[in-house]
Amino acid sequence: APMTGELRCRCIQKVSEVIAPKHFANIELTPEGPHCPVSEVIATLKSGKEVCLDPTSRWVKMIISKILKQVNTKL
Amino acid sequence: APMTGELRCRCIQKVSEVIAPKHFANIELTPEGPHCPVSEVIATLKSGKEVCLDPTSRWVKMIISKILKQVNTKL
Repeated sequence: APMTGELRCRCIQKVSEVIAPKHFANIELTPEGPHCPVSEVIATLKSGKEVCLDPTSRWVKMIISKILKQVNTKL
Repeated sequence: APMTGELRCRCIQKVSEVIAPKHFANIELTPEGPHCPVSEVIATLKSGKEVCLDPTSRWVKMIISKILKQVNTKL
């Protein structure tokens, strides 16, 4: 999804198709603010590609909660 | 919390005290991977400071779900 400059919303389009968790390098959550009236979820894939995700879709929420659970399982 | 280089875990210490949502510029979730056996939650505050958050603490999960809900309320 093309990205805009910093002082506005960064997401124009959001990907709708599901992306498997293994492809994600990181996920950045930007809360709503003066620059943009809605929060935005921007993922960087391991390929280096940046995509905007829809914070309301179930699979996005599932991936985020999965990441939050990946703690201390190996320590 | 001091940060390490890219190819290892980036968080040495995690903040324990609660930080109010209004202070967050963004929150970055990095899943576990070859570089680090646990997922990491790194927040950039509006002050520019970067802090590591504990993904297992309730208030971190609450802030993340709050951000995910800030959608379409204004559109």
